[in-house]
Amino acid sequence: MHNTNIKSEFWRRYLDLVRDVLIPYQWGVLTDQIVCAEPSHAVRNFKIAAGAADGEFSGFVFQDSDLYKWLEAVGNVLQYQKDAELEKKADEIISYIAKAQQPDGYLNTYFQLKEPEKKWTNLLECHELYCAGHLMEAAVAYAKGTGKIVLLQTACRLADCIDRLFGWEEDKKHGYPGHQEIELGLMKLYEWTKEPRYLKLASYFLEERGRNTYFEEEFEERGRISHWTGGPVEEPNRYYNQYPYSYYNQFHAPVRSQAEAVGHAVRAVYMYTAMAKAAALCKDKELFYACRELWNNITEKQMYINGSIGSTPSGEAFTRAYDLPNDTNYSETCASVGLIRFSMEMLKAEPESRYADVIEKALYNTVLAGMSLDGRHFFYVNPMEAVPEICDASPERNHIKTVRQEWYSCACCPPNIARTVTDVQNLIYSVSGRRIYIHQYIGSELETELETGRVNLTLESDFPWKGNVKIQFREAEDLCAELGFRIPAWSAGCTLTINGERKSLKDFVTEKGYLIVKHVWKKGDIMELEMGMEPRFMQADERIYYNAGKAAIVRGPLVYCLEEIDNGPHLHEYRADVERSLQEKWEEDLEGYYSLSFSAVRYCGRVQKELYETAEVHKEYTQLKAVPYFLWNNRRQGEMITWINIM
Amino acid sequence: MHNTNIKSEFWRRYLDLVRDVLIPYQWGVLTDQIVCAEPSHAVRNFKIAAGAADGEFSGFVFQDSDLYKWLEAVGNVLQYQKDAELEKKADEIISYIAKAQQPDGYLNTYFQLKEPEKKWTNLLECHELYCAGHLMEAAVAYAKGTGKIVLLQTACRLADCIDRLFGWEEDKKHGYPGHQEIELGLMKLYEWTKEPRYLKLASYFLEERGRNTYFEEEFEERGRISHWTGGPVEEPNRYYNQYPYSYYNQFHAPVRSQAEAVGHAVRAVYMYTAMAKAAALCKDKELFYACRELWNNITEKQMYINGSIGSTPSGEAFTRAYDLPNDTNYSETCASVGLIRFSMEMLKAEPESRYADVIEKALYNTVLAGMSLDGRHFFYVNPMEAVPEICDASPERNHIKTVRQEWYSCACCPPNIARTVTDVQNLIYSVSGRRIYIHQYIGSELETELETGRVNLTLESDFPWKGNVKIQFREAEDLCAELGFRIPAWSAGCTLTINGERKSLKDFVTEKGYLIVKHVWKKGDIMELEMGMEPRFMQADERIYYNAGKAAIVRGPLVYCLEEIDNGPHLHEYRADVERSLQEKWEEDLEGYYSLSFSAVRYCGRVQKELYETAEVHKEYTQLKAVPYFLWNNRRQGEMITWINIM
Repeated sequence: MHNTNIKSEFWRRYLDLVRDVLIPYQWGVLTDQIVCAEPSHAVRNFKIAAGAADGEFSGFVFQDSDLYKWLEAVGNVLQYQKDAELEKKADEIISYIAKAQQPDGYLNTYFQLKEPEKKWTNLLECHELYCAGHLMEAAVAYAKGTGKIVLLQTACRLADCIDRLFGWEEDKKHGYPGHQEIELGLMKLYEWTKEPRYLKLASYFLEERGRNTYFEEEFEERGRISHWTGGPVEEPNRYYNQYPYSYYNQFHAPVRSQAEAVGHAVRAVYMYTAMAKAAALCKDKELFYACRELWNNITEKQMYINGSIGSTPSGEAFTRAYDLPNDTNYSETCASVGLIRFSMEMLKAEPESRYADVIEKALYNTVLAGMSLDGRHFFYVNPMEAVPEICDASPERNHIKTVRQEWYSCACCPPNIARTVTDVQNLIYSVSGRRIYIHQYIGSELETELETGRVNLTLESDFPWKGNVKIQFREAEDLCAELGFRIPAWSAGCTLTINGERKSLKDFVTEKGYLIVKHVWKKGDIMELEMGMEPRFMQADERIYYNAGKAAIVRGPLVYCLEEIDNGPHLHEYRADVERSLQEKWEEDLEGYYSLSFSAVRYCGRVQKELYETAEVHKEYTQLKAVPYFLWNNRRQGEMITWINIM
Repeated sequence: MHNTNIKSEFWRRYLDLVRDVLIPYQWGVLTDQIVCAEPSHAVRNFKIAAGAADGEFSGFVFQDSDLYKWLEAVGNVLQYQKDAELEKKADEIISYIAKAQQPDGYLNTYFQLKEPEKKWTNLLECHELYCAGHLMEAAVAYAKGTGKIVLLQTACRLADCIDRLFGWEEDKKHGYPGHQEIELGLMKLYEWTKEPRYLKLASYFLEERGRNTYFEEEFEERGRISHWTGGPVEEPNRYYNQYPYSYYNQFHAPVRSQAEAVGHAVRAVYMYTAMAKAAALCKDKELFYACRELWNNITEKQMYINGSIGSTPSGEAFTRAYDLPNDTNYSETCASVGLIRFSMEMLKAEPESRYADVIEKALYNTVLAGMSLDGRHFFYVNPMEAVPEICDASPERNHIKTVRQEWYSCACCPPNIARTVTDVQNLIYSVSGRRIYIHQYIGSELETELETGRVNLTLESDFPWKGNVKIQFREAEDLCAELGFRIPAWSAGCTLTINGERKSLKDFVTEKGYLIVKHVWKKGDIMELEMGMEPRFMQADERIYYNAGKAAIVRGPLVYCLEEIDNGPHLHEYRADVERSLQEKWEEDLEGYYSLSFSAVRYCGRVQKELYETAEVHKEYTQLKAVPYFLWNNRRQGEMITWINIM
């Protein structure tokens, strides 16, 4: 175990934003006090179920999970900063949650209040196990943050209830969740309580998946009724696209035989995360290899340059290798949250810089893009390009919003951003033996115990704007320790000094993308690393047809884009001169950022008398200004483009 | 009235193909004798309804219309070529149709056999009036082709039945069709029979539309049941996209207040055609102006360069002005059939070359593209570009097939091609007073009576390959007549000779795009017109964002495209040099065509180790070969692109 404390100014701002704005705002939504958002009713549902209020259930079948995710974020916040008022608010609602629980441990306000006779009859569509999983994650986070166990006990009682009902044993139900999540919750509960039944149950849910016909059977048993239409339907799940619905829910094959990421992207990565965690907890190599196949498939064939995933709104899903359209993609914020968690499990199992590279990409370019700088507006979908008129007009592009929304009735993304941002300290380091891996260069303090002794160090860095990293040992006594520095794939080169003395990198080994610095450290030692962060144009593999003749701009971990506010409209008419350099300039607005300017030519179109006229080429040479993708749409609505035609 | 006889080699081939291949093939499908197609059951349904066979109804609720469309094509064929065997086959099935009709005139095998208690309870979804309209169109065509009236009597009895049920009168139902078509059928019936009730009923269906809440009322009355789901639904029609469903069915406003083409494209243009025809028959100027607004809206803002319409598969619909995506469009063959009919009605009402230009565009580039050269394979959807792998993978592009299909279970397009091709002679001329308009340069003979006398002329031309037109008077006696020649928008200039003598175009007036040649003609006179058919690059209005920096290639009436078979894969990597000329070459394959070659540069992509790598520009200069769009996919499956990036 180790303790990490975030010091990075960049990240402190986000942490404060989540604590001071997002969490209170979300609480307002959950308690129906925000005028501009649809009433969530989530808190009220629990009060009704607890017998403390009158009324009827309202909201989606997964409404409970919104409150659980809020509690998880609160638990995360309280781990690094005491806040008596926030804790009191949380304790109060936790008491209602506990009271709402049935004597047998069952807890789900939708079914308790609305359809008590239908419990466990529709695992495919009804999110009972999904909500339970989020309760478990929240309970562990809250216990970590406060030491309080009321929510933990509630979660355990629910886990026990589920454990009595589901499992391999013949007298139990052989179902598994339509939306994966409980597997992770159960394993976190196992890690905290050490109760082996929880790990066994998580393994059961993973392993049984795709091995039986449970979803078809429960469908027949409930008279082929769909939760979503309320009437009989032809297939157990909604028909989304040309792929079989078993792919949508990832039960087309046993999980350890799955090698290609398919179906609903969030469900997929939640499941893969659980698989990777289970592989580690159970030391199951075969399962781990399946995870590696899946991770490779995503990142080598199905991931956007900003670390987002999900090529289609149809089922919010993966499609196939190299199908990465820029203007019809889904790229849900939650899916990148899941990809970060999946990658982190992989990284813990085998430290390879590519996992941390993907975490960095998804974190800076999709998760942060999902929230406005004011912490009150959110993107579900993160397009690679967008023209407001087109997104309004075209049904294939209408899921793309060109303004962040205040809230969503299906409010999964905002709380997912909250719990990810407030958990960012757990992405930075990992520690084993005498080695400290530094995965993310986020200014922080680390306190830990290596097998060779105790250490307390600070990491200072101006990431993501500068490539400098400074490690200072605040506590270390002739400590023989290895520091493993991730050398990001984007870094063109780096320099290393120890106590001011320049070192040759040749004297150090690099293991799987980590520069290993062995040294005997003492208090006051300073190690500095400087990574090149030159901006550059990137090109895609030619099998991504959509990006033919186009380039994207990156600088360090950040992907850039063009916005109409800086460059005027008709961004598709420009072609970048990728053979000339990108000029960087520090800008003071939007909390500060480097803009990148470059030469381009505009193939000027014209408003015509006829829709189609004889072509006349009219070129204009100009300069364009790119801004970090995660900052787009923080000024005003307009066109945005990431993959730019090249000259 | 005038008689036209097609002589054009190009079109004779298509007429023969329809008569010798498509019509027999379609008959095979209708009678369930084609192994590779899904059984249609359409003929069998009529036999069962006629009491001549046992069994149950099978097929869609609009299955009857497939047979009616076949009969219309047969009627068309028999107008220009006797075929005793074909006529016998048709007569036989017509006798079953007549027998299937109920004593009250009702005729619809779906409802008679499957849901007799539900007649007229779901006008929105159930196509009863639509099928009736197709029966009427078929009946008139068959009467014209054979002089036989059995089908006509059947159609009239059904029209009478409908007339007793629907209309403005208080004791009648105030419904109108979900899928427009009957309006046209009734007017054709009126033109043939002169029965004013049919025109009045057609006017009623048009005028009442969008003025009441009938669709909502019938929805409530039948218990909110959807025909398509079989269960209760929230809205009377399926939810297609972000537009209200009243737009899908064009009842969002009274028809004469509609100024923007919206909703399902085929329904829309069928309705607009009927509106234009009604405007002419009723001399209703206001209605005609509404038609002009709608026609302008389509052709100035919502039409593809190949004369196709319908920007989205979601509802097979129009979207909004300038939203014309190239890789997700619908561009249904049937919609262009409707656009041709709509334009023809407009042209008859006011001779302006732009209407004939659009007919030409849609006819050569979409209707002909809808059928393979073997007459056995069909496109529903006509994309502007397609990559097979992408169309397979992406749900937003999966409606695009990159191989023509053998048949479709919803088989609207193939018979629509058949009836359009076999009706092509009616698109060529219109005659009024002493003037003969020549709208389409399709080799043919015309026999007609002008107010100044009788005339018989031949038109020879090598359209669409050459711009030559030769008119020879075979019968004319000092005939004072005006020939109005359409000067196509694509024509860069033309020359005119009369009896070998070159004339100055300045000596002739041009009226709304028609060159008016007044002359006193006598037998043997020859008039020749030569129009420039230089190939050229076209550009789109810049409000079509999708075409920024791109060009399309046209030559005369034909739109061109690049195919993988000629140019290799990765067509998106090429950029055309639009400032250099296009070289034409006559090719002998594919029944003969001009190919067009031009200079281009390829921005070579590469298969990469990483999905995204530092950009390195690698250009290759090359020649590309374009082929007429209507011929694409007649050799083998592969990429195709119409809007090509420019250099």
